[in-house]
Amino acid sequence: MFAILKRDPVNRLRALLGDRKVNTSIVERKLYSYDATPIPIERSVPLGVVFPENKEDVIKLVEFCYEENIAIFPRGAGSGLTGGAVPTVEKSFVVSFEKMDSFKVDLENSVVYAEPGVVTAHLQEYVEKLGLFYPPDPSSYKYSTIGGNLAENAGGPRCLKYGVTRNYVLGLEAVIKEGKVIKLGSPVIKNVAGYDLMGLFVGSEGTLGLITGATLKLIPKPQERLTALAVFQSLEDVGKAVTKILTSGVFPSALEFMDRDAIRAVEDFKGVGLPRDAEGLLLIEVDGTPSGVREEIGMVEGILKSMGVEVKVSYDKESSEKLWTARKSLGPALGNLKSGKINEDIVVPRSCLAEFLPRVRQIAQKYNLMVAVFGHIGDGNLHVNFLYDKSNPEEEERAEQAVDELFELTLSYDGSITGEHGVGLTKKKFLSWQFGQVGMELLRDIKRSFDPKNLFNPGKVFDL
Amino acid sequence: MFAILKRDPVNRLRALLGDRKVNTSIVERKLYSYDATPIPIERSVPLGVVFPENKEDVIKLVEFCYEENIAIFPRGAGSGLTGGAVPTVEKSFVVSFEKMDSFKVDLENSVVYAEPGVVTAHLQEYVEKLGLFYPPDPSSYKYSTIGGNLAENAGGPRCLKYGVTRNYVLGLEAVIKEGKVIKLGSPVIKNVAGYDLMGLFVGSEGTLGLITGATLKLIPKPQERLTALAVFQSLEDVGKAVTKILTSGVFPSALEFMDRDAIRAVEDFKGVGLPRDAEGLLLIEVDGTPSGVREEIGMVEGILKSMGVEVKVSYDKESSEKLWTARKSLGPALGNLKSGKINEDIVVPRSCLAEFLPRVRQIAQKYNLMVAVFGHIGDGNLHVNFLYDKSNPEEEERAEQAVDELFELTLSYDGSITGEHGVGLTKKKFLSWQFGQVGMELLRDIKRSFDPKNLFNPGKVFDL
Repeated sequence: MFAILKRDPVNRLRALLGDRKVNTSIVERKLYSYDATPIPIERSVPLGVVFPENKEDVIKLVEFCYEENIAIFPRGAGSGLTGGAVPTVEKSFVVSFEKMDSFKVDLENSVVYAEPGVVTAHLQEYVEKLGLFYPPDPSSYKYSTIGGNLAENAGGPRCLKYGVTRNYVLGLEAVIKEGKVIKLGSPVIKNVAGYDLMGLFVGSEGTLGLITGATLKLIPKPQERLTALAVFQSLEDVGKAVTKILTSGVFPSALEFMDRDAIRAVEDFKGVGLPRDAEGLLLIEVDGTPSGVREEIGMVEGILKSMGVEVKVSYDKESSEKLWTARKSLGPALGNLKSGKINEDIVVPRSCLAEFLPRVRQIAQKYNLMVAVFGHIGDGNLHVNFLYDKSNPEEEERAEQAVDELFELTLSYDGSITGEHGVGLTKKKFLSWQFGQVGMELLRDIKRSFDPKNLFNPGKVFDL
Repeated sequence: MFAILKRDPVNRLRALLGDRKVNTSIVERKLYSYDATPIPIERSVPLGVVFPENKEDVIKLVEFCYEENIAIFPRGAGSGLTGGAVPTVEKSFVVSFEKMDSFKVDLENSVVYAEPGVVTAHLQEYVEKLGLFYPPDPSSYKYSTIGGNLAENAGGPRCLKYGVTRNYVLGLEAVIKEGKVIKLGSPVIKNVAGYDLMGLFVGSEGTLGLITGATLKLIPKPQERLTALAVFQSLEDVGKAVTKILTSGVFPSALEFMDRDAIRAVEDFKGVGLPRDAEGLLLIEVDGTPSGVREEIGMVEGILKSMGVEVKVSYDKESSEKLWTARKSLGPALGNLKSGKINEDIVVPRSCLAEFLPRVRQIAQKYNLMVAVFGHIGDGNLHVNFLYDKSNPEEEERAEQAVDELFELTLSYDGSITGEHGVGLTKKKFLSWQFGQVGMELLRDIKRSFDPKNLFNPGKVFDL
């Protein structure tokens, strides 16, 4: 009996790392097998949940798992929406980086060194006090972690002007096959030596190895933000307005769209006074120096008025924030309508909006579902929300069928199946549509170079 | 005799593509075996120079070369400084993309579709007339091409604020092994599906395949630019000033440094009235809306004055441009001092400047060379110019030894051996210092996936 216990991999890992770093309670193991994915997915209960406290723990863990052929499922805050952090085989460990949560700002070089478990909002609040800015703003930023953000190449409304997570990574340290350590990049802004392995790692959804630390670029913090809200009676005008704004010399820090049904949902929920008959609504935010933002928001107002578009501009911080109430109420408003919501994050060239949106509504109609669309129209990144009754499995299945059709439609517009959420488990079957056979072969080759035993987050993004 | 001619690969390629697309004159073949690399490198005369006119030509060429085991050396404008476009084996074709030079702007989506042979400046001038902006600004932009810029991941002074070429690539089409075509990305700003093969291709220096077209992101064109010139008596103060500016809410569009010896060279050459006893000089440019830039440059002036730094600010376009005279005179000024110049583009964390620069001067002293340093201090990207007499082989060799020592010094500061120019041939031996053994293995694996026969730009960046 004692010999069996000694041979048991969980006990051996406990001996290797220390008991407190390997949790084997069934409650924890089950808890850590979930993320925020809204649709049912297959999941397994892992052997244990590992909490590394430093790089050495991670190396030991990977060495051990590579020796024993045990799968590793890395996890940030579990806020992912596509099953990326969900364990899919039983002979596995979930690795949570919550104990590796320290960071250090280097003010002189405008960079921050962060461990993977740092909560994005904590880092952002800290650097903003120093006059610096870390722009990536996924809607989960208050609880999601830097490691998760790196794995998913997280973005948000600000990415139109400031780019996505990948654009802020200057250096990366990771543990790959057999516990080998790679140090990529350096704490400098420009570096063109060799292939961009760092950029490859960012957005690889934990399938290439475990990130143990990153050097992130910080930029000067904009001093002020102002917002305009525009009400449109036609979707064509939304596109025209966006083009006019973006060729006027104004560079909005956010350009958010809400469609007719999203507006109505917010009104039903909160009654903030939006016109229920409008076809769409645009929130335009600018940031910069005090007189710069006033000038820019004035230009936006002028453009919209010259188009005959109803526009409300805030020239101070407080009323600016009020204008965002509607946008921020969207989540709860939609949740109020139906118990289930599939929030997809497809991307299409933004000029397609007026043609694309009616076709999305046709899909919803075909499957007899409610749909509300909002998103980052500047990047063409639209959150298509199919609403359904969670207690009705038949309606849930219809919602999943609608999503499949939405992806087909998206790809027919030369778009992308995911602008923010990643592929994970739920979008796997669509990836080859986007990459083609040659591209898929290259992806598999790269996966095999970093992880020949397919132990890092196996079964995610694509099958080997 | 006729049979031999038929078997000759050059004639067969001519038959395949059409005579006018394959130039075999010895003059052309020799001419196209050079680029702008300032130091002597080994080069071979290729079998011919191929001028594809469309994607189909490129596919045919690669299919043919893969069948016949003939190396392919892609070439943009030949303005590279590290031997990236130089053929190194005789059984090869140089491929010049100068006939593939069309581009098309999609104003509604703020993107441009460009063939590889488009001259960067042509594209930039065109889109600026439409109110849009393509920021990457290598100093070769007036003649270098988009294809070359993509291969090298080109940057320039504006990259501090706007990022490098890779940050502007939304889609890429390339021909890889056996003539296979890969289409990566899509004309949308956000796309997190699968690994970032596109980012991997950008900066791969022509070693993974041939780029046949790219979709590039355009952003709103800033309406105005203003500049300040600051004169420093201490290098420590340069670093302090940069940090103060970058944490004040001002985001300069350029932050250019010139050291003592660079200042003196300009004065000797042109006498623009710079103080010959200054330790360094900083040019700070801001861009944005008319009142925004005035406010920002005023803030810069205030910061510098409060530090006791001598500063000259321009509040209009004309005097702003005058302040750039010194920076723009640097090339000819240094050329005036000595016939030979090795312009290295190392990168170090910018906080190291005050410690690093004296050590660079020690290296120059050790090898009895003149040195002048200038560059993009915001990113820590410094152009270290060792000057030597071209007619003196012994002095030339000393200059090359100094460069080796400069790279060692750079890497000891956790820097990079190249911020802009690429690795090519001349920096190959230093790459493993930066990547380590595990990293080098991954680079080789990736190269083999895209190009198992090692026919695309063989011998560049690293050896297989």
